[in-house]
Amino acid sequence: MRVEIWTDISCPWCYVGQARFEKALASFPHRADVEVVHRSFQLDPHRTKGDAEPIIGFLMRGKGWTREQAQANEDTLSRQSAALGLKYVMGRDHGYTFDMHRLLHFAKEQGRQRELLTLLYRANFAEERSVYDDDERLVDLAAEAGLDADAARKVLADPSAHAEDVHADLREAAAVGATGVPFFVLDRRFAVSGAQRPEVFTQALTKAWESRSSLPVVAGAAHGDACGPDGCPVPH
Amino acid sequence: MRVEIWTDISCPWCYVGQARFEKALASFPHRADVEVVHRSFQLDPHRTKGDAEPIIGFLMRGKGWTREQAQANEDTLSRQSAALGLKYVMGRDHGYTFDMHRLLHFAKEQGRQRELLTLLYRANFAEERSVYDDDERLVDLAAEAGLDADAARKVLADPSAHAEDVHADLREAAAVGATGVPFFVLDRRFAVSGAQRPEVFTQALTKAWESRSSLPVVAGAAHGDACGPDGCPVPH
Repeated sequence: MRVEIWTDISCPWCYVGQARFEKALASFPHRADVEVVHRSFQLDPHRTKGDAEPIIGFLMRGKGWTREQAQANEDTLSRQSAALGLKYVMGRDHGYTFDMHRLLHFAKEQGRQRELLTLLYRANFAEERSVYDDDERLVDLAAEAGLDADAARKVLADPSAHAEDVHADLREAAAVGATGVPFFVLDRRFAVSGAQRPEVFTQALTKAWESRSSLPVVAGAAHGDACGPDGCPVPH
Repeated sequence: MRVEIWTDISCPWCYVGQARFEKALASFPHRADVEVVHRSFQLDPHRTKGDAEPIIGFLMRGKGWTREQAQANEDTLSRQSAALGLKYVMGRDHGYTFDMHRLLHFAKEQGRQRELLTLLYRANFAEERSVYDDDERLVDLAAEAGLDADAARKVLADPSAHAEDVHADLREAAAVGATGVPFFVLDRRFAVSGAQRPEVFTQALTKAWESRSSLPVVAGAAHGDACGPDGCPVPH
């Protein structure tokens, strides 16, 4: 079974939702047969490299909030994170994430995607130093995730590297109806939107697992040629 | 969109079916957004390393056929292959494929699965020399597919390497109802069984593509916390 999770690194509910999903997955009896894939989403698609800014100012300007309102929003996210054992620093930045998604696709190729995603979330939400607009910071995180630092540096230096992979994910997000994140798709049969409680993920995993055997066969062996336990019959 | 194809290297209808599917895919307008994944299937799960034998003898013994009947079966498969431009040698062997599946999983990790699968089919069906029970032959094919020869040799020498990946595919085959191969699963929403005509694959690809947007959301944003174009609302 495959679970695809559309997320953005700058999305606090993705940080929380990932932990809630992983909590459910850890106790799912068939977890060894569940493949989890990160899919790219851009919360703020017009943002460009170099224009990171403190989240509080961004919320005040973008939403017309007072400083107190923006601060209260961050306080709530910090408490929700703490409830899952996740650190959440106040005063994080908001910025450009496209290159992080490119790096996550490179990590996927190397079997290190989950490791890098976890480290990117931690860097953005749990560490004082901004994760934005600092390629060497990303190279360090890639190395910590088990990737080759020079290879990661090359990916970051070449804007075309894995860019098409990110764009394909963004197109798929639109196709499956993901307008916000986190957005979870189980075997392309069911979707779960938002950072639901772990019990909701457990139910969705169970439902998707049990429905695997009800796959409609749109063209069957009666009209096709196949090999099975009785050999490879040929048409007469 | 993802298409998973359960196959075995020793399966002639898989060789033919792969070519028919690829013909349909080549003219599918959204082919750039279709990911194709090989899944392992064992036609003859009790066969072990070292006991390859000529296919004609296997068919005569296994199915109680005369030599002429077995030969006629091979003739038909040869003609079906030729119709797709595929060479098919008479007198191929039948043998143990588990290690080839392990190698295909290693190739998947390296982004070279399709290349290796194509070469394994060619080696088994289009070349005089048997592909079975000859690790160095497989290492050569792996290298031709763009893999590191030493790494491939190590995978073959360690029976546990990628064995669990193969077993997971076999379990999934049972779960999705694949009792014969080739068996095609499109986005885990539709299945096509057998080496259907290219037009059937075109219809199935189109149907699966168009149905992507009708994914049922089992738990929606109304009850979950998500970030979208309007920010990351928090519960009050």
